[in-house]
Amino acid sequence: MIQIAILGLGTVGTGVARVVAENARQIERKLGEPLQVKSILVRHFKDGPYRQLMTDDFRRIEEDESIRVVVETIGGVDAAYEYTRRALEAGKHVVTANKQLVAERGFELLALAKKKNVSYLFEASVGGGIPILHPLTQCMAANRIDEVYGILNGTSNYILTRMVRTGAFFTDALREAQAKGYAEADPTADVEGVDAGRKICILADLAFGHQVEPERVPMEGIRKLSLRDVRIAQRAGYRIKLLGRAVRLPGGGRTAYVAPHLISEENPVASVEDVFNAVVVRGNATGEVMFYGRGAGELPTASACVADVMECLQSSARREEIGWSSETDGFEDPAELKTRYYFRIEGSLTDAAMAFGQVEVLSEDGETAFLTDSISGTDALRQSSFLNVLACMRVLA
Amino acid sequence: MIQIAILGLGTVGTGVARVVAENARQIERKLGEPLQVKSILVRHFKDGPYRQLMTDDFRRIEEDESIRVVVETIGGVDAAYEYTRRALEAGKHVVTANKQLVAERGFELLALAKKKNVSYLFEASVGGGIPILHPLTQCMAANRIDEVYGILNGTSNYILTRMVRTGAFFTDALREAQAKGYAEADPTADVEGVDAGRKICILADLAFGHQVEPERVPMEGIRKLSLRDVRIAQRAGYRIKLLGRAVRLPGGGRTAYVAPHLISEENPVASVEDVFNAVVVRGNATGEVMFYGRGAGELPTASACVADVMECLQSSARREEIGWSSETDGFEDPAELKTRYYFRIEGSLTDAAMAFGQVEVLSEDGETAFLTDSISGTDALRQSSFLNVLACMRVLA
Repeated sequence: MIQIAILGLGTVGTGVARVVAENARQIERKLGEPLQVKSILVRHFKDGPYRQLMTDDFRRIEEDESIRVVVETIGGVDAAYEYTRRALEAGKHVVTANKQLVAERGFELLALAKKKNVSYLFEASVGGGIPILHPLTQCMAANRIDEVYGILNGTSNYILTRMVRTGAFFTDALREAQAKGYAEADPTADVEGVDAGRKICILADLAFGHQVEPERVPMEGIRKLSLRDVRIAQRAGYRIKLLGRAVRLPGGGRTAYVAPHLISEENPVASVEDVFNAVVVRGNATGEVMFYGRGAGELPTASACVADVMECLQSSARREEIGWSSETDGFEDPAELKTRYYFRIEGSLTDAAMAFGQVEVLSEDGETAFLTDSISGTDALRQSSFLNVLACMRVLA
Repeated sequence: MIQIAILGLGTVGTGVARVVAENARQIERKLGEPLQVKSILVRHFKDGPYRQLMTDDFRRIEEDESIRVVVETIGGVDAAYEYTRRALEAGKHVVTANKQLVAERGFELLALAKKKNVSYLFEASVGGGIPILHPLTQCMAANRIDEVYGILNGTSNYILTRMVRTGAFFTDALREAQAKGYAEADPTADVEGVDAGRKICILADLAFGHQVEPERVPMEGIRKLSLRDVRIAQRAGYRIKLLGRAVRLPGGGRTAYVAPHLISEENPVASVEDVFNAVVVRGNATGEVMFYGRGAGELPTASACVADVMECLQSSARREEIGWSSETDGFEDPAELKTRYYFRIEGSLTDAAMAFGQVEVLSEDGETAFLTDSISGTDALRQSSFLNVLACMRVLA
């Protein structure tokens, strides 16, 4: 019998308790022994099926030597950080879906885990139940990873899908997402690109092996996106998607950012709709592989946490591939990265051509929408400085 | 310094040597020490960069205690089985891309590996460089897996793509695939569904935890597929794809088979084209997740082998989840499985309705093409027995 504790009993915490109970047979067959939730840390006691397991005193978990794994589902940084640190110090494995904590302090917690010879795992922090971090770090371990990009936030993808399909405005699509429970009452982290930004930081950390500081990663969301650009893009054979992107630069540096992109409809990522997520990893041997599925939800996210619990119990904690260097040098501003750019300007094709030379016109009717050649973000900004720019987005090659 | 041996120096074997050399830095960073190919078993010595490493005597590898991992890339069963068994007996880990050997004798070799406390890993046997088996067995370990299906053979998918895009007949599309090097001179295993069949056996073994005997898995390829059905399906919003499919049946049994299917164009698998592969895994907690990429090729397949080499060296060999029971009971004929069926008959809608009651007509012009309700394979056969059936395929829900 292996005993674990859950910190927090929100959506993910409840899901973990449910998955452990409902899939007990599968889990026992693979683990060789039964898995049991012994304690659940809550702030306020509530009636319900888990009443007997609740405690509001973390020390009872910390000091219980029979508890081998702690699943942290509190979220945020403050208490989650404190309890994670103490659990690791007490020699317990810790598993989490907390992307903010991993993006901001993952390096430090991983180093502590290695020192204590336990694991700190967080597969559920990116892509919910879609396996991404393990495939990236382990199955693709023999590759040099050159790029990772993807649709990392289901809420904003749902809003974009509604805008494309029904011609809804951003604010109406957001209200619909809130009504369906896909968006929080305060949707800032989702629609401003912050949630996707934390995830791309974690992916970049693991892909390139160096700490990426979230505050250096430009995060642009979809709030300013116009229905007009959605339509122009679609007529030209593109979809607009909010992408997190981490790229190894030709000079050996690395960069990462979040922004809406035009994507050719032939790229499988362009067809990813509603609340689905997709992550593409490009390795120098494997080429591009894509991981696709529901990126959130109680049971998918919880089942990824439980799989990590099982992984902790079966693997060596000293696996070098799950971890990264604290060295942040080599991170460059994504302005260095060259791509084609989409512009919509108040002005004519002549104005566009004067700024960028030859361009590919997508629409021209008072306003002009066009694609440039591949240029850096710095050049895109400089060359467009005399134009009246209404919209500007990168194009994914 | 960790030393390995490669058995065979064909496409995959050469790729393994190249990946070890070209990605040496990445591999060393993750492994904590350098990885080196010490010996390569060949039948005939050839000049080239690996001449110094070649041997034609397996005993030199078997008896060399400095060799910790053997990568078997010989293919087939006879010699590959013999050398794998002896390497495991000698206490070496074995890694392979050999789907035939794993499908036919994987159970026995895994049991031997466990007994000797070493690993037998074969991520590259399904999907080439796309991570599938590890995500299925480890990242989704907390799920009850209810279904696995996918496009498992790039050659036949390339042929189907050409038939849809250019209206080519099967034989012309096959010739084109051969000219491009996507199909072997003898394409039987690819176009008759045998290659996909071996892969679905391995996926079913791991998903359900019981040995599936390849000879009990019906394998139908694409050789008899008519361009006419491809066109009718497309007009009705479907694509035809060759799928391997393994399903947990409502009564607790399991089944697996390979056959062409109609798939709604809204299913992401329908958009998988050319030589790409995609595998969908449906877990009771995670829902459907899809893994997508190039399913073959020298470097992708080789990099999956090298990742398995690294995995062997870092994980406990006793991981219960990589393995399955020898118990074959519970495997049922896929005729038990209910789906909608596509029929094209020489006859009228009245004939179709007399056989199946209400049907959904897709085309009617002398011949009639239609979809039935969801019925078992047995019923499909029985109810159509008085019809002149020109084509019959399952529809993926």
